[in-house]
Amino acid sequence: MRRLGGLPIGVFDSGVGGLTVLRALRREMPSERLLYFGDTARVPYGTKSKETVTRYALEVAAFLEGRGVKHLVVACNSATALALPALRRAARVPVTGVIEPAVRAARRAARDGVVGVIGTEATVASGAYQEAWTKSGGRGRVVSAACPLFVPLVEEGWWDTEVTRAVARVYLRPLLKARPRALILGCTHYPLLKPVLSRCAGPKVALIDSGSETAAEVRLELESRGLLRRAGRGTEGFFVTDGPERFKRLAHRFLGHAADPRVVRFEG
Amino acid sequence: MRRLGGLPIGVFDSGVGGLTVLRALRREMPSERLLYFGDTARVPYGTKSKETVTRYALEVAAFLEGRGVKHLVVACNSATALALPALRRAARVPVTGVIEPAVRAARRAARDGVVGVIGTEATVASGAYQEAWTKSGGRGRVVSAACPLFVPLVEEGWWDTEVTRAVARVYLRPLLKARPRALILGCTHYPLLKPVLSRCAGPKVALIDSGSETAAEVRLELESRGLLRRAGRGTEGFFVTDGPERFKRLAHRFLGHAADPRVVRFEG
Repeated sequence: MRRLGGLPIGVFDSGVGGLTVLRALRREMPSERLLYFGDTARVPYGTKSKETVTRYALEVAAFLEGRGVKHLVVACNSATALALPALRRAARVPVTGVIEPAVRAARRAARDGVVGVIGTEATVASGAYQEAWTKSGGRGRVVSAACPLFVPLVEEGWWDTEVTRAVARVYLRPLLKARPRALILGCTHYPLLKPVLSRCAGPKVALIDSGSETAAEVRLELESRGLLRRAGRGTEGFFVTDGPERFKRLAHRFLGHAADPRVVRFEG
Repeated sequence: MRRLGGLPIGVFDSGVGGLTVLRALRREMPSERLLYFGDTARVPYGTKSKETVTRYALEVAAFLEGRGVKHLVVACNSATALALPALRRAARVPVTGVIEPAVRAARRAARDGVVGVIGTEATVASGAYQEAWTKSGGRGRVVSAACPLFVPLVEEGWWDTEVTRAVARVYLRPLLKARPRALILGCTHYPLLKPVLSRCAGPKVALIDSGSETAAEVRLELESRGLLRRAGRGTEGFFVTDGPERFKRLAHRFLGHAADPRVVRFEG
């Protein structure tokens, strides 16, 4: 068990957004070894078909399993929405996605009240949050809004500018009319907009950061399996499929420290 | 010649941006048959390596040549910047990219004055406009600015909103300090922002729309080869590699009329 506990946790995303989940995992588990995979050659997953995203996700998961991970975290809403069941069937290790932990946290926060979900066009159109909500026994209404400009605003580094505040007002206004008690940040880029979003939504709305919720669940699961690494310095390794320079630049912004990725090429 | 003249013009882009070029071609040549190819499964090209973009562009060009086109228009700045020479070597028909026509128009407008170029991060980083400018004998300085938020703003349909005006001011301010006489819209999405950009840049700056300039050159070339279709109603056909619904929605916005694409799958 000791040996297994020393293995890294594999974290993957289509690009850089999942770095907010990596950050949350690190905060929750300072001693863990973390391997991050950004499929930057094939980003975005959100506009691709279920078959394609599943194929890509399985390929990345197999790569990370090949490096010997003890747990897989799908730090990508599109991959979670479209490929989680296939990943769970294929992987030899437990797989945690970002949707279920966020929905559980939203249920605790909203009780039977209205829950808001914001995400990319693809995530909202997939209905994955509504489905997970119903499956979890949630009764309140789910209202959602696609916010396609948030990802480019975050990647541009405009986390709290006048423009970003104006965009947030436009996107959230119709959703806030439904008076949600909780608002799920259904895209791994959005935690970086928390200050703007929480001011815009007001103090009565609990913001649910799927990264933090996912990290907390992964920790519990590792603990219960006796696989949590409790001592020693945590380490990080990074893999991308293209554009290492852009990744480096954005990763520094997202994580607050350097990340030097190795480039992996898949066929096709 | 008559028979050849009746063949379509092939137009391709990584996504929907090239539709502004299609629109310009239609305006310039009402009787032409136009085939548009949007490589929506692999968009964006701008973050991919030269080798990858060249491979994709050759694949699309071969597909369009296989449909029997008389001319190819690369309605994509990234593909023009990275793959035009390879396309010209491979294609049996003449190939026109969007960069050279825009640079020629900018030379006419700016004389020896400063020229501004705005585009995506990748286009600006490629230095392709600077290179084409120097090659064309241009002497004035080229100043450029990457405007990564413009594409998502256009695709969101926010062509002339307060947010878009604010973003334009932020992006253009440093560039306008160099007092350019012409401003090249180095991305096929940007013509849809013309009202905002021209107000922001002021009346002394000539906006160069690469789509219009490209269309004018294609017309001249077809005329000189006796291949211009002068009579009859023009027709349009559309191909995409993924996401036909999203393409349809955006195409309607870009063109002002319906576009019903057929889906083509390439391997990989």
